[in-house]
Amino acid sequence: MQESTEGGSLNYLSRPSNGKQRVVVLGSGWAAMSFIKSWSESLSDKYELVLVSPRNYFVYTPLLPAMCAGTVEERSIVEPVRSVLKNKGRFFEAKCNEILPEEKAIVACFPEDAGFPEACFKLPYDILILSVGCVNNTFGIKGVEEHTTFFKTVEDASRLRLRVSECFERAALPATSSEEIEKLLSFVIVGGGPTGVEVAAELYDLIESDLSKLYPDIVKHVKIRVVELMDHVLSTYDRAISNYTAEIFKRNGIDLVLNSRVQSVSYDRVTTVDKDGSETEIPFGACVWATGIAMNPLVKDLQAALPEGAQTHFRSIVTDEYLRVHGAPDGTMFALGDAATIEQQKALDKADELFEKADIDNNGRLSRRELATILREASKDFPHLAEHARFLESKTGALRFGGIVAKAFANANKSTSQTIDEELYSKYVNDDASLDREEFQELLQTIDSGLRALPATAQVAKQEGEYLAKLFASQDISSSKPLDLKSTAPFEYVHKGSLAYVGSDRAVMDVPVIGPIMGYFAGLAWRGFETFSQISFRNQVLVATDWARSKIFGRDTSRV
Amino acid sequence: MQESTEGGSLNYLSRPSNGKQRVVVLGSGWAAMSFIKSWSESLSDKYELVLVSPRNYFVYTPLLPAMCAGTVEERSIVEPVRSVLKNKGRFFEAKCNEILPEEKAIVACFPEDAGFPEACFKLPYDILILSVGCVNNTFGIKGVEEHTTFFKTVEDASRLRLRVSECFERAALPATSSEEIEKLLSFVIVGGGPTGVEVAAELYDLIESDLSKLYPDIVKHVKIRVVELMDHVLSTYDRAISNYTAEIFKRNGIDLVLNSRVQSVSYDRVTTVDKDGSETEIPFGACVWATGIAMNPLVKDLQAALPEGAQTHFRSIVTDEYLRVHGAPDGTMFALGDAATIEQQKALDKADELFEKADIDNNGRLSRRELATILREASKDFPHLAEHARFLESKTGALRFGGIVAKAFANANKSTSQTIDEELYSKYVNDDASLDREEFQELLQTIDSGLRALPATAQVAKQEGEYLAKLFASQDISSSKPLDLKSTAPFEYVHKGSLAYVGSDRAVMDVPVIGPIMGYFAGLAWRGFETFSQISFRNQVLVATDWARSKIFGRDTSRV
Repeated sequence: MQESTEGGSLNYLSRPSNGKQRVVVLGSGWAAMSFIKSWSESLSDKYELVLVSPRNYFVYTPLLPAMCAGTVEERSIVEPVRSVLKNKGRFFEAKCNEILPEEKAIVACFPEDAGFPEACFKLPYDILILSVGCVNNTFGIKGVEEHTTFFKTVEDASRLRLRVSECFERAALPATSSEEIEKLLSFVIVGGGPTGVEVAAELYDLIESDLSKLYPDIVKHVKIRVVELMDHVLSTYDRAISNYTAEIFKRNGIDLVLNSRVQSVSYDRVTTVDKDGSETEIPFGACVWATGIAMNPLVKDLQAALPEGAQTHFRSIVTDEYLRVHGAPDGTMFALGDAATIEQQKALDKADELFEKADIDNNGRLSRRELATILREASKDFPHLAEHARFLESKTGALRFGGIVAKAFANANKSTSQTIDEELYSKYVNDDASLDREEFQELLQTIDSGLRALPATAQVAKQEGEYLAKLFASQDISSSKPLDLKSTAPFEYVHKGSLAYVGSDRAVMDVPVIGPIMGYFAGLAWRGFETFSQISFRNQVLVATDWARSKIFGRDTSRV
Repeated sequence: MQESTEGGSLNYLSRPSNGKQRVVVLGSGWAAMSFIKSWSESLSDKYELVLVSPRNYFVYTPLLPAMCAGTVEERSIVEPVRSVLKNKGRFFEAKCNEILPEEKAIVACFPEDAGFPEACFKLPYDILILSVGCVNNTFGIKGVEEHTTFFKTVEDASRLRLRVSECFERAALPATSSEEIEKLLSFVIVGGGPTGVEVAAELYDLIESDLSKLYPDIVKHVKIRVVELMDHVLSTYDRAISNYTAEIFKRNGIDLVLNSRVQSVSYDRVTTVDKDGSETEIPFGACVWATGIAMNPLVKDLQAALPEGAQTHFRSIVTDEYLRVHGAPDGTMFALGDAATIEQQKALDKADELFEKADIDNNGRLSRRELATILREASKDFPHLAEHARFLESKTGALRFGGIVAKAFANANKSTSQTIDEELYSKYVNDDASLDREEFQELLQTIDSGLRALPATAQVAKQEGEYLAKLFASQDISSSKPLDLKSTAPFEYVHKGSLAYVGSDRAVMDVPVIGPIMGYFAGLAWRGFETFSQISFRNQVLVATDWARSKIFGRDTSRV
């Protein structure tokens, strides 16, 4: 460790003197840890790897809902960053407060605590990996910040666990009126995505399996509600899955408050407005905010620090398809995970060339099949077109040489439909539809315009981390040498499917090629997958034994 | 549940209308839970059992030191009160703020939280069981409250766990000077009793087994110190055990700061004074206050509310040998655990009668053997004399009919020596010693004077709880009928031995009859005992698997 005061009053860790490039990674979530895990130890001969994060552990976020119910324990789904890093590099527990792209340095601080002062230091980098994630989005709604429980961190899930227990204890007191009991045992979850659905499901399990025995007199007053803006939950999943979930929820007495947005939240009630504009007040004991993410303030500051015009996106830092941050000198800054969005290469610039190649019969129009074929071919250069090609192929039956394959493709399409706007193709899916040169250009413009908004999921972040580690392994990354694009494949996301637990040992899975799977066996598969996918063997064993423990002995309801 | 407002503005749970006596138990520690566990379900036909405690779970306190190091997890050593209660009675999570002995009622409150107001209620009782424990004693020393970590609760142990992790993370930052590193990695434990020794031992294990791998650069700066007023640690144990512990600690680099008291504590240093009056400043990253307990404020208020002169003890509520609270009408109030002290029956009143019976040879003097014999006989009426009889027997060799038995008694004596003042007998242990009538009276007065201060341990509280539950099972407890003392044996404490973990898989045990056992096998026995002694089968399994988990995978060092 070289320490000096060259940075003025800030303690300063100067650049390695052994000729290594210093790679500073910010964050310890999915993207950062996937990058670290995929980082081969031999790379550390060439680079000095330094991880900086305010959190010294990784959280397996898909099991946070299970944790808030006590089905698994918090210690089982976290893993110390240092255990993952091992000999690959160093870790500093500190929050990055400032990125100085011109100076190629960051400023990070350990906060004031227990009488010990804030400890800040400046850390120069050669290459910066930005994987700091997003923050919660309250959409400016009054009372959300103060009165709801967010659901992004272990602390959030712990807080909810304690809160639910507190609500039951308060409700069981002799001083509690029946009106108050109803309020205390009303649990409102805002957001019908996978997180909201799983929190509702796990809460239901906790109450049904355990709390009903411990609080037999009051358990009948429990009400769980999920508030969702759209007309169905799990809207990024196959519709069959949404319907199945709604059915299970109905059977379990979980109310879906659909087509409704939250107007305001007070300490004990949430006001919703439905699509007709009529207001409803729902009293609650606990309200979970499981919807919406917003830009990390650090990312906002970085946008301003980069050359004007390079970064304009409202929520993320924009990268090219090699995850390089726009506006930063080549080879000095990468971004991935929820903090980043990939800007696609423009296919539009090659519209004419593509059209001519596609129009095999030279009639000046592209048939649906021709369109599908050219999109498939063009996807070699413009990977974002691949999913569009797949979508059209499934509709045209171009590859329908057998029922199974057809179904597979149809399903593959469904499972990525979250990023495809079906409307866009409504006029091309008829057998006799075709489009002329101008229409083709329009279509490309639509596909190209805007950014390729990959979903803000663990899966995307994980693949990006793996991709970036491979990039480091495949060539020298350095500001003195531009990236060798010829030999480098751009990042392409492969959707492996979506999973959600819906309660009563049942889960839903939306798997490409196979399609939607729902029910008890999906529940087993979900459990197996979530156990197997833990970041370490230790976590796998802990989660597996936790599941066994809570099945056998029930969940712990102590308000620790 | 009958609810009414007869108590004025306070919500009021009126007395049972079915003729049952209401037994209100305050607390959820060892005494209360042992009482509840031993309470036979059939008793609930006669009594309405109501438990009130601000904590809705029981903590297996002997494993708190293991928990602070992550060797076992907090959820594994807690058990919800409601799971223990089952069908025996009801539980209200609330803090008893006031006992009204004249009205035979308590007032308890659930504190204000998350916008929900404080919820108070009045609960009339027929019989009150006071088992609220003690609070921490700072002895009025400046800074203890603000800057040290107490070690009584799960929260305390959690706080210490996080604090240690924080100290390591701060020390590992590039901004940290070597002087600061030394300070941050200095851990001071005040109090060389079993708790202090075990905290030091577990911290040592955590650092040695796990943190040394994760923080290899800084671990050499770690220093653990135990500050103790006396000239040896574990002063209530056999001296051989103290010596062994000191030896193990020395080998492991744990410093014993003996003959020293704490003068003051600031946010980063503790000032000690040794017996010569010289001051030492010890900088620290964390300071644990594992010494001293003080009267619970609720007990103080109760003392004042009982008839004048009935309660004058400085630390506890005083009971008779049937655990009945002095000054409260017979059959209405019992106290047990750390909150209570048993006042012994006076043997002095029968001094003459006893002397004549004892003086077999009628020479007006009692030989050592005669003294031992009469104390043994008198112990039928005055149980507190039994340990004195045992002590003398071991010295006189009255029962030395074989080497083994003699050793057994000698050891039995040692293990209870914490309550016997050997000085007292120094003049009677010579073979030719004897005492006259006046000296005998003096001796009895000394033995009788003061209170029988049983140690404030889980073991005592547990036995008292079991005793009291048996008392309820054996006869009707009610204010309308005095206790049938003829058929009722007074409470007698049976010391089963003491245990402490000293680090590196080694433990010390001070077992009656067998004597002191130290070392690796004691470590195995300790682990087995602490697993087996859990309050539920669930906890037994959790603790056992925790031990296996942390042995195999190491302790989790995430700062969750």
